[in-house]
Amino acid sequence: MAAIQPTADIGLVGLAVMGENLVLNMANHGYTVAVFNRTTSKVDAFLADRAKDKPILGAHSVEELVANLKRPRKIMIMVKAGAPVDQVIDELVPLLEPGDVLIDGGNSHFPDSTRRTRALKEKGILYVGTGVSGGEEGALKGPSIMPGGNPDAWPLVKPIFQAIAARAPDGTPCCDWVGPEGSGHYVKMVHNGIEYGDMQLICEAYFVMRKLLGMEPAALHDVFDRWNQGPLDSYLVEITRDILAQKDDETGKPMIDVILDTAGQKGTGKWTVISACDLGVPLTLISEAVFARTLSSQKDERVAASKILKVHPTSFNGNRQAMVDDVERALYASKIISYAQGFALMRGMAKESGWEINNGAVAMMWRGGCIIRSAFLGRIKEAFDRDPNLTNLLIDPFFAQEIGRAEEGWRRVCAAAITHGIPVPAMTSALSYFDGYRTAQLPANLLQAQRDFFGAHTYERTDKPRGQYFHTNWTGRGGTTASTTYNA
Amino acid sequence: MAAIQPTADIGLVGLAVMGENLVLNMANHGYTVAVFNRTTSKVDAFLADRAKDKPILGAHSVEELVANLKRPRKIMIMVKAGAPVDQVIDELVPLLEPGDVLIDGGNSHFPDSTRRTRALKEKGILYVGTGVSGGEEGALKGPSIMPGGNPDAWPLVKPIFQAIAARAPDGTPCCDWVGPEGSGHYVKMVHNGIEYGDMQLICEAYFVMRKLLGMEPAALHDVFDRWNQGPLDSYLVEITRDILAQKDDETGKPMIDVILDTAGQKGTGKWTVISACDLGVPLTLISEAVFARTLSSQKDERVAASKILKVHPTSFNGNRQAMVDDVERALYASKIISYAQGFALMRGMAKESGWEINNGAVAMMWRGGCIIRSAFLGRIKEAFDRDPNLTNLLIDPFFAQEIGRAEEGWRRVCAAAITHGIPVPAMTSALSYFDGYRTAQLPANLLQAQRDFFGAHTYERTDKPRGQYFHTNWTGRGGTTASTTYNA
Repeated sequence: MAAIQPTADIGLVGLAVMGENLVLNMANHGYTVAVFNRTTSKVDAFLADRAKDKPILGAHSVEELVANLKRPRKIMIMVKAGAPVDQVIDELVPLLEPGDVLIDGGNSHFPDSTRRTRALKEKGILYVGTGVSGGEEGALKGPSIMPGGNPDAWPLVKPIFQAIAARAPDGTPCCDWVGPEGSGHYVKMVHNGIEYGDMQLICEAYFVMRKLLGMEPAALHDVFDRWNQGPLDSYLVEITRDILAQKDDETGKPMIDVILDTAGQKGTGKWTVISACDLGVPLTLISEAVFARTLSSQKDERVAASKILKVHPTSFNGNRQAMVDDVERALYASKIISYAQGFALMRGMAKESGWEINNGAVAMMWRGGCIIRSAFLGRIKEAFDRDPNLTNLLIDPFFAQEIGRAEEGWRRVCAAAITHGIPVPAMTSALSYFDGYRTAQLPANLLQAQRDFFGAHTYERTDKPRGQYFHTNWTGRGGTTASTTYNA
Repeated sequence: MAAIQPTADIGLVGLAVMGENLVLNMANHGYTVAVFNRTTSKVDAFLADRAKDKPILGAHSVEELVANLKRPRKIMIMVKAGAPVDQVIDELVPLLEPGDVLIDGGNSHFPDSTRRTRALKEKGILYVGTGVSGGEEGALKGPSIMPGGNPDAWPLVKPIFQAIAARAPDGTPCCDWVGPEGSGHYVKMVHNGIEYGDMQLICEAYFVMRKLLGMEPAALHDVFDRWNQGPLDSYLVEITRDILAQKDDETGKPMIDVILDTAGQKGTGKWTVISACDLGVPLTLISEAVFARTLSSQKDERVAASKILKVHPTSFNGNRQAMVDDVERALYASKIISYAQGFALMRGMAKESGWEINNGAVAMMWRGGCIIRSAFLGRIKEAFDRDPNLTNLLIDPFFAQEIGRAEEGWRRVCAAAITHGIPVPAMTSALSYFDGYRTAQLPANLLQAQRDFFGAHTYERTDKPRGQYFHTNWTGRGGTTASTTYNA
């Protein structure tokens, strides 16, 4: 291969649909992009078809890719998360120089991005782990981009990332620097967890109206269309509206009625729950959403159980339109809880890791481009503008007022669903969290008494300063264990 | 040190309260026990006090400990889980011979026990990771013991373990071989997760009666006393009864009212939830219980939130005694769900790991000695006797009937708690699981439609065989992505 005059602004490895669309997005914004794929026939096919007549250069080897890049080189990796990312990094690094930038735009687990940022820093390579959300269409037309890693990389990738990113209605790019190490992928992970929650909540709202009120897809289309004009205005409500209008070509039935009710999942929802467990941050709604998917996938067991654990049919005697309005309130209030929990999780992680994560900037990045984009996120941005150190969205004046307005309807929906046997795990979990969060005195005193009774775990007292631990000899026959400091 | 004639049947390292009590239990059953503790003054203090006049030999070094042991040597390690266990193993192994047995009786994380079983097998050492439950009193008088690891160790430790274990009412020792590798610690982990669930459920039952019905501790004592005669008969209900009768010496108030409502936790509840996430088994109740503890620990936030998110006081107008009876039903039904989920988790792990875990034997081991011991576990044992391959407790005829009887009361309690703003996250989560598990058709079809809409994730159809995946071009402007197999 003869020496090539480097002309490409950025390189990209991995031409699956997300990679291809990001390349086209960059090219459409005037950037010259060099591309490589391990199966090089994909490079040729892309160049001959979608990349035709665009400033896109194909490479048949990593050496050729690197030779095409202007210095400092920037290479984005869009391959399957896990070992493939490390393999591509290992192939590229010997060809790079200090000051070059490597960007992983896949759904990597954040500890991997932390590890890679640190390891590549030793070699002078500036590593970025970035979340990219918006699905294939977002990648092409403007995704939400959440980069974190080596901060020296940010000025080098900022122009191109902010050019290709979605824009919020006020014109702000949905891309900003998240923070050090794996923070970009952490924020993307929480985004996906929240996406699990949003989707589950919409499913529950749909299910209550379908099962309890007996509404058909066409009528539900109208409901979601109306909701999309109000505070629930969001991409997921919009596509739900469209899904409910879709007919199946083959049968003519509503499309929704021919789709099997077994939900798949990838790792990010689960990772979010695990992180919440590790940090000790209550993240009940997303956990219920993740488990709801696993329960849905047990289709055969459910069908078998439905024949044994009979439902006693009951009919709804209330006002149907009022209940539809209550379902809107339940969805809205539960959504506030889910985001309150998700942002509290990021706050917990920032504290634990020493990362500074700007919650307001995160809300802005999610405002457009990504799957959870919504008007609502603008409100969250405003809450963090009012108080950048807000501990929980629920105590922001706007959200406190909104949830107060929705509260009674939310309770009516949950109570009706419970009475009539319709599972709404995310909505009821959200309500329990709300009722727990605003309760100064929970029954954990009994729990501490139990733990002290059987395990001498000690407890604190309501009438003594925090940090003093006491033990009661409950049985009158306790051992030698006295009150000691107990590390929870 | 002169050569010692080995006379000890077993050695034990680590004289914290659990270790000491296990040693005394063994000695009380006629076994000679050699003991060692890193801080050797503890050895002397133990010998001079509680171990006095018992067949217990003190050692001031690991060499002396090992020299005291009859062959094949058996040494039980009772130190803090994690690195300390590896340190003790590393010190002991050079002094041991092939065929000797090392037993870790702490709360180790099961992957560590798997790793240690494999590594020590290479050296001919038979490793056992065993759960020990029952708190300090159980350790002394008869714990539940759940050993797993190298199966060649079982015949060597069985006599002593079954001698010191608790016994079920029918006389069966609450100790049996669980399975290979980390299975003993896995089962103990699930036991602890279930313990989290049981405790949270009791707290919720208490809270509903205290807050909704305004009952005082003395009246609640009577309720728990009555419940302990029925299907809820269990150690945790029994100690709750006793706790509610306890007065504080200092203030004369009910003890429960001077204990602070911030619950601590160690790692096992969290590990159980993480394992459920990894295995894709819905374990909603224990997850809510773990998160309820973390929420309780956010005391300052809750107190602050209670002043902003005001409760609108409502009063309960129903029949109070009927509601108490309904709370009993709600607690019982929720408990069935929790155990159904916990046993399903063990089934999932057995499948994933290739371990054979005998669920009926596990129920028997938990029947006595441990914190969750109860009459109920005898019923679970019977269910697995009827069908050793039972996929879920809920479809066992006995439990299906029991939950059917409790169902309406359970719904009334959850609906009342929701209406009146009393958080019952575990009870409502259990009910959602029940309603989901027995529903042949969940709303996950909408979720799959959403995933296909924004990510071309594909879906299965109700009218086509499983394993065929379809994609709809929802927007009419989809990319090149066609229906492909999607690996969830």
